[in-house]
Amino acid sequence: MTEQYYQKDHLLDLVTKVLVANNTSEANARTVADALVQAQIDGQYGHGLSRIPSYSGQAKVGKVDGHATPSIEEAGSAAFRVDAKCGFAYPAMALATEKLLEKVKTSGIAAATVYNSHHFGIAGYHTEKLANEGMVGILVTNSPKAIAPWGGISGVFGTNPIAFAAPRKDTAPLVIDLSLSKIARGKVMVASQEGRPIPDDWALDVEGKPTTDADAALAGTMLPMGDAKGAALVLMVEILAAAVSGAQFGFEASSLFNSDGPPPRLGHTYIALNPELLSGGGFVERLEVLLEAITTQPNVRLPGQRRLDGRAMANEKGISVPDNLYEKVTAMLPDAA
Amino acid sequence: MTEQYYQKDHLLDLVTKVLVANNTSEANARTVADALVQAQIDGQYGHGLSRIPSYSGQAKVGKVDGHATPSIEEAGSAAFRVDAKCGFAYPAMALATEKLLEKVKTSGIAAATVYNSHHFGIAGYHTEKLANEGMVGILVTNSPKAIAPWGGISGVFGTNPIAFAAPRKDTAPLVIDLSLSKIARGKVMVASQEGRPIPDDWALDVEGKPTTDADAALAGTMLPMGDAKGAALVLMVEILAAAVSGAQFGFEASSLFNSDGPPPRLGHTYIALNPELLSGGGFVERLEVLLEAITTQPNVRLPGQRRLDGRAMANEKGISVPDNLYEKVTAMLPDAA
Repeated sequence: MTEQYYQKDHLLDLVTKVLVANNTSEANARTVADALVQAQIDGQYGHGLSRIPSYSGQAKVGKVDGHATPSIEEAGSAAFRVDAKCGFAYPAMALATEKLLEKVKTSGIAAATVYNSHHFGIAGYHTEKLANEGMVGILVTNSPKAIAPWGGISGVFGTNPIAFAAPRKDTAPLVIDLSLSKIARGKVMVASQEGRPIPDDWALDVEGKPTTDADAALAGTMLPMGDAKGAALVLMVEILAAAVSGAQFGFEASSLFNSDGPPPRLGHTYIALNPELLSGGGFVERLEVLLEAITTQPNVRLPGQRRLDGRAMANEKGISVPDNLYEKVTAMLPDAA
Repeated sequence: MTEQYYQKDHLLDLVTKVLVANNTSEANARTVADALVQAQIDGQYGHGLSRIPSYSGQAKVGKVDGHATPSIEEAGSAAFRVDAKCGFAYPAMALATEKLLEKVKTSGIAAATVYNSHHFGIAGYHTEKLANEGMVGILVTNSPKAIAPWGGISGVFGTNPIAFAAPRKDTAPLVIDLSLSKIARGKVMVASQEGRPIPDDWALDVEGKPTTDADAALAGTMLPMGDAKGAALVLMVEILAAAVSGAQFGFEASSLFNSDGPPPRLGHTYIALNPELLSGGGFVERLEVLLEAITTQPNVRLPGQRRLDGRAMANEKGISVPDNLYEKVTAMLPDAA
């Protein structure tokens, strides 16, 4: 796979133009582009430019409303609901971030629930914005069904990521971001395409039995990280992200990848905490004490370091995009035909 | 091991008297007794009456201040800090629960951070009280060091449980409560006492190598559930519970079991969400839709069912206490000598 390196502004412009050509407002396209290009920089390619064909296809047929403007509604003095209006998730998340930062300054904790939503990309992308302003962020989302309840056979839950970010002294925030499946479904897809077997502890077949057959795994369900305990966390996130937000459950939602079916109407629950108020002061200094007890041990890295490596590389060489993906995206420009 | 069954009031009275005889106020003793007896009913014996000798010993020498009255301090309009004053955790948690329920009615979300605290028993015991009043609860605590950072060799974090509870329609709340170690340390202690080996994926020795020797495991560290992902969650909980609350970290804290050293000064972060406000209404009905998609699958149980089995049994037969424990506790009564 060959690749080339591009400047950020060029890619932002490219993504924005492709989305605008596919039934999306300029402002929404720009917000989506910011997130996709940042994912590409951070080395999270599954949430990067690879999403453009699928996003554009969904906007074109209206499964995602590219012209939606999210709206906000109070849900108590420290909480609000954001209706993503079946548009892209990013404008709704940007609105939630802005309003959370405003509230949490004086409330100590604040919550946003987002509903009628879609794929929001890297969960840590959003929480990091809270941490950049000195706040601690927690964010959960549900996603289309992929995981069965523990002991069961039918998929009910998504891979339901949890993201967390905390501000650090004089350096980028600490970001923790993990999906609750043991292994990303994308790895099973790659094994299937290459006709390779998978380890027997990644997934179950349709009868709920462990399988090494990637195709049988794709027809079945992914195993949660941490077995029964992880399965309980998956349920917790499904309740928090979907039931608490008034969204659809993973087993009710349509695919985030293709243009078929109604909008997925997923939900996110997004919490900001004001660590200076809650700790009585000195939070960032104390966090450094904890992180030093970790990083002074040999061979230990903090979570989220890969994104910082990606940013350093992007600064130095530009942003890496595989040639075949770049060609596919530029072919979608309105003047490319 | 023989056991007998006792009435709840009898055990509450017994526990209260033993604690009062050991340098604890009547009110605090009663609050501690409520939690320990409930743990005994719920079949969580490690957080039940077995704690009495250790609690009493710590109160006697003042490692726990049995006469402490927790105090409260605002930390924003929807948040507050509770100083447990190096007393038992339960009075501080009861105060936090009461005040959270008051706030969250109109704030949508509310947070309490508890510091200068101690062992709070079953995490789900507290969140269930929020759910009994229609609120969703999330609670995390840190605990004395037991788990190393992923790839490391020295213990930094506690087993750091996460608890969650949500109100249900016409039945007891759904409660999820899990410590983030793969296996409870207590199981390794039992293997050590019985001279049995342990599976090689439970713990690491002092050099960070997997071990089947229970004694080597006790000298080393416990593995987190879910490997690297679980280790990231352990870090998240340590930050939320201790750095955000202004408490001591697991690696700074003294033991919760013996009377040596200064108070552990642990921290808890406790969040209440108002699901009717946040969801736009209909939360409990929607939760039932989700739970039905789980419980209609063969061989699947919801998390937290064991406690309900324990309650049914206690209603029928009384509360089971092993004879040797009952004798040990009654021997601690002031008139027993």
